[in-house]
Amino acid sequence: MNDPKETLGDELHSLAKALTRPYRSITGEGVRESLRIIQKHIPLKIREVPSGTKVFDWTVPKEWNIRDAYVLDPGGNKIIDFKKNYLHVVGYSIPTDSKVSLDELQKHLHSLPAQPDAIPYVTSYYKEYWGFCMTDRERRKLKKGKYTVHIDSTLEKGSLTYGELIIPGRVKDEVLLSAYTCHPLMVNDNISGKVLNTFLAKWLMGEKRRYTYRIVFVPETIGSIAYMSRNLKTMRKRTIAGFCLTCGGDERAYSYLPSRAGDTLADRVALHILKHSHPDFIRYSFLDRGADERQYCSPGADLPVATVMRSKYGTYPEYHTSLDDLKLVTPKGLFGTYSTLKECIDVLEQNYVYKTTRVGEPQLGKRGLYDNLSVKGSFFSFKNGQYMSDFLAYADGTRDLISIAEIIGAPAQALIEIAVMLRAAGVVSRK
Amino acid sequence: MNDPKETLGDELHSLAKALTRPYRSITGEGVRESLRIIQKHIPLKIREVPSGTKVFDWTVPKEWNIRDAYVLDPGGNKIIDFKKNYLHVVGYSIPTDSKVSLDELQKHLHSLPAQPDAIPYVTSYYKEYWGFCMTDRERRKLKKGKYTVHIDSTLEKGSLTYGELIIPGRVKDEVLLSAYTCHPLMVNDNISGKVLNTFLAKWLMGEKRRYTYRIVFVPETIGSIAYMSRNLKTMRKRTIAGFCLTCGGDERAYSYLPSRAGDTLADRVALHILKHSHPDFIRYSFLDRGADERQYCSPGADLPVATVMRSKYGTYPEYHTSLDDLKLVTPKGLFGTYSTLKECIDVLEQNYVYKTTRVGEPQLGKRGLYDNLSVKGSFFSFKNGQYMSDFLAYADGTRDLISIAEIIGAPAQALIEIAVMLRAAGVVSRK
Amino acid sequence: MNDPKETLGDELHSLAKALTRPYRSITGEGVRESLRIIQKHIPLKIREVPSGTKVFDWTVPKEWNIRDAYVLDPGGNKIIDFKKNYLHVVGYSIPTDSKVSLDELQKHLHSLPAQPDAIPYVTSYYKEYWGFCMTDRERRKLKKGKYTVHIDSTLEKGSLTYGELIIPGRVKDEVLLSAYTCHPLMVNDNISGKVLNTFLAKWLMGEKRRYTYRIVFVPETIGSIAYMSRNLKTMRKRTIAGFCLTCGGDERAYSYLPSRAGDTLADRVALHILKHSHPDFIRYSFLDRGADERQYCSPGADLPVATVMRSKYGTYPEYHTSLDDLKLVTPKGLFGTYSTLKECIDVLEQNYVYKTTRVGEPQLGKRGLYDNLSVKGSFFSFKNGQYMSDFLAYADGTRDLISIAEIIGAPAQALIEIAVMLRAAGVVSRK
Repeated sequence: MNDPKETLGDELHSLAKALTRPYRSITGEGVRESLRIIQKHIPLKIREVPSGTKVFDWTVPKEWNIRDAYVLDPGGNKIIDFKKNYLHVVGYSIPTDSKVSLDELQKHLHSLPAQPDAIPYVTSYYKEYWGFCMTDRERRKLKKGKYTVHIDSTLEKGSLTYGELIIPGRVKDEVLLSAYTCHPLMVNDNISGKVLNTFLAKWLMGEKRRYTYRIVFVPETIGSIAYMSRNLKTMRKRTIAGFCLTCGGDERAYSYLPSRAGDTLADRVALHILKHSHPDFIRYSFLDRGADERQYCSPGADLPVATVMRSKYGTYPEYHTSLDDLKLVTPKGLFGTYSTLKECIDVLEQNYVYKTTRVGEPQLGKRGLYDNLSVKGSFFSFKNGQYMSDFLAYADGTRDLISIAEIIGAPAQALIEIAVMLRAAGVVSRK
Repeated sequence: MNDPKETLGDELHSLAKALTRPYRSITGEGVRESLRIIQKHIPLKIREVPSGTKVFDWTVPKEWNIRDAYVLDPGGNKIIDFKKNYLHVVGYSIPTDSKVSLDELQKHLHSLPAQPDAIPYVTSYYKEYWGFCMTDRERRKLKKGKYTVHIDSTLEKGSLTYGELIIPGRVKDEVLLSAYTCHPLMVNDNISGKVLNTFLAKWLMGEKRRYTYRIVFVPETIGSIAYMSRNLKTMRKRTIAGFCLTCGGDERAYSYLPSRAGDTLADRVALHILKHSHPDFIRYSFLDRGADERQYCSPGADLPVATVMRSKYGTYPEYHTSLDDLKLVTPKGLFGTYSTLKECIDVLEQNYVYKTTRVGEPQLGKRGLYDNLSVKGSFFSFKNGQYMSDFLAYADGTRDLISIAEIIGAPAQALIEIAVMLRAAGVVSRK
Repeated sequence: MNDPKETLGDELHSLAKALTRPYRSITGEGVRESLRIIQKHIPLKIREVPSGTKVFDWTVPKEWNIRDAYVLDPGGNKIIDFKKNYLHVVGYSIPTDSKVSLDELQKHLHSLPAQPDAIPYVTSYYKEYWGFCMTDRERRKLKKGKYTVHIDSTLEKGSLTYGELIIPGRVKDEVLLSAYTCHPLMVNDNISGKVLNTFLAKWLMGEKRRYTYRIVFVPETIGSIAYMSRNLKTMRKRTIAGFCLTCGGDERAYSYLPSRAGDTLADRVALHILKHSHPDFIRYSFLDRGADERQYCSPGADLPVATVMRSKYGTYPEYHTSLDDLKLVTPKGLFGTYSTLKECIDVLEQNYVYKTTRVGEPQLGKRGLYDNLSVKGSFFSFKNGQYMSDFLAYADGTRDLISIAEIIGAPAQALIEIAVMLRAAGVVSRK
């Protein structure tokens, strides 16, 4: 039999690979195709918001689709070919078909002199423009002459597409899991988020849950704004915690980016798990934000959304280039982030407020939970005995399990087991 | 005339010595005898709680008494003799009279390989068992053969005994002083606590007091629980501060163990006095708890009880062995802890909220409290002049004397003197 | 054209020089003359409080005036001459005209052995006394013999004089600016405070203001107490921030002395400006207080008054000596403190609570406030773009501009500009 870790890691990575094929932008067929790939795993609903719809301060843009794009050099050689790498074309480029001088072409080219072998990722969603991206090494080889530029795209009335899945729990209180769908190709940012969201949803559907889970796949910024414009009232009323799923596929250190408030349940559980499971994690400030927490945590929305990721967007060299690929993101990297987010959810689900039912310490000995022979240096007959004593000391009806875990320095998971024993013994109750 | 320090230190040590004679456990005649020795100093009431009484989650156990216990080696030599050292028998051992092989005997022997010359202190209150304790050096000499084990003990319906003295004050608000009575022989843990409680009560009875003092001598754990089961309602309503008296007789650094809440009046006064009088004190966490604060501070009881001690139980090498004796505990050590606890009580008694009766600074000069000649670098004509000015600046009716002392960095005792002067001058009032 | 900095610095220094001429004490003609000099700049009201008036715990003393004072040596040489340096006579000295031995004279002489060339500043306001101050170097030259001491002063019923100017704003909420007027000669302590108060008032009168400004010139201690005895009710109701103006003329590091509460608006704005504009400032505690904040912040008054100064009174070698002169205080030093206090006031005036009017981030791009081309590493098309984004993230209707500036690490002045742009764009509103 295979190691479940390897098996599941490979499944995550396979979905990532499948998601590199559709070309995505904030709107268009590629987004729909991506959501249909995800539908093979979970019963996602695909929703459309028509172009021109007002969503808070924004307007849903025209739908953009692209079939082909290339540049021919003066000799007629195809030196840039969208079909070879989607990043070659600037996202939302308007249709073009003309001959331009090298000087004119240069105004529409983007490359990274500091990373000469990387094709950068560039977009122009809200201003009409066309452009191409290429490696700086290739760009430097361009010679004077007439170049043919061809972009076969359409920018027409259509819609913005998103995916949504509500997994009902015992209570209506919700946990939000949101991944953005817009970037083409790039695997860590953010195919990894879509993969994690898919597999977490799959796992959550497999068992009875306390909380309701709101699983969301939206294009970044305009998508989360459009989504909130339809759902904010319910989300504000019910969301107890949420996580942006992004940059979760490489094997580098974990990162934590807080919610705007900084001390929500999402923050508390994320920090607790990272401190115990990945103590070398990097702690960012909300000032370092950059993904959909910008919208979810904005004043007016103010949802309790934190982010647990690996290398944060904007900080790793491969970010927003063709180097953010299926080699940077590994089965092991994806599986690690998936497991860490599962830990967060498991603790959230068990994060009750506990209260002892007795004055004074309960007599653990008569219940087999304490060693009746008192010898110097040893009182507890079982693992985590001191945690049990400490849990009882702080289970005063004012603190949830995570708070107690933080006070006593125990991993929350150990306290979950202890709480089960103590409830069975009748000496603590949930509030 | 003798130094009062030496005289009183010697008196404290004499009582400690007297209290080594009765054999104590959580119940039994030895406890009663110990309380009668204390009654020679203070008018303690001796109370009984019958075996089988339900006290919160616990049941008062049968009363245990022991007359004799020994082990004879194959040659008939008495190699273990309870009469020579009470620690030789495991506390609450059931009666035994039989011949056993060395292998069988070993299952009932306790020693400390790391402290080969110490007899450990072992108990088995809540599970029927018999056993003996000895030095590891002696144990290693045992040879194969038949051993005679004899324990002449009784475990019968009886009662749990405790001592109580209420010293009334001007107000009904109470200060709790509690010492545990159960351990036999060991002087720091906790003959010292009983000695301190006795002499503090004696001192408190000698003068008019603001607060009522509740002086309690109980067996550890079961005793404080039984005591609270009878008195909790009053204690919760009236207790403004309390102290566990334990491990107060050696000469090592002071220790502070907070209440569960951590910021009660007991904590504040204890920390203030230790910071000023014994700045090298060791500050523990409530997670390091181990004596009756476990019960007094438990959720449901939640009394404001802190501990000021010398070497904390569990941390010093002599702890729970025959080495915790009248040499470890000295007249000087006992007197120091006694004096420190007196300082705490003196400050508690004077810890009023003060309020200036004037807008702006009062004119101290016309009252002889300020130097009327203003010369660079010198404004105050008396000791602690700056403390007086600072006290006035913070006596705003929202802070008690300890708070002001903490803000201005003054010892509370100095502020008590200043408050007397300022009240006499009519420029501050008590709230 | 001159540098405005130099021009204004020179104007400040000229007023300082003019204010060295009148001899001041807590009462007397010199105070009135000083206020009349200030009246040449601002329409100050001069008020009188009669001797004997009860002002809270104090009584306004008799008015003291001095015409001449000198000491003749046995040979008839004038070795101390009040007309040469006002500090030679102890403030509030009673009239004297007699011949005394050197021994008798010594009892009335004050000098500073550690600063042998400085004449100290000594007063005896509330105890009848006469005395002279001189350099220690001169004092050591005195020889045995009969000395003539002559002080032509009067201590008679009169009044305590203060200056007041209320500059009305759009709202009745007030900012207090208070300088003390009593010390003679000394330039940093506190001619500088009077100069700053005068020129700040002049500037404040020059434009429409949100807040009302209460400009006060009072003798130290008795003056601020007398002033509050007449105005406290209004001051307590209306004062949102206040500053003591003192020791603001030398070129050394800035100092901050908090209000008693420590977190008032005055404290917050002062700390913010000093952190950003003068990060090497010295942060004192309220325990280091020494000027009229002692009265304004006293319990009962409890006004939000902080102090921004250069070398704090009591800490610099020239303090309370003849060395605190027009060389220690420079045009540049005065201008710097003046500018820093203006910065505080400018920020106070614009310190509104802001709230975004949108859910989610507003679309800055369509308003020309964001670069529409998204390229790795560059999003903002203008200076302080990240501050704009961060300001929007925290403008949630619960925080004032200073709070947001502190959270996002921006200078408040930059946020004032941003708030103007964002209000014009309609995406934030003032609360």
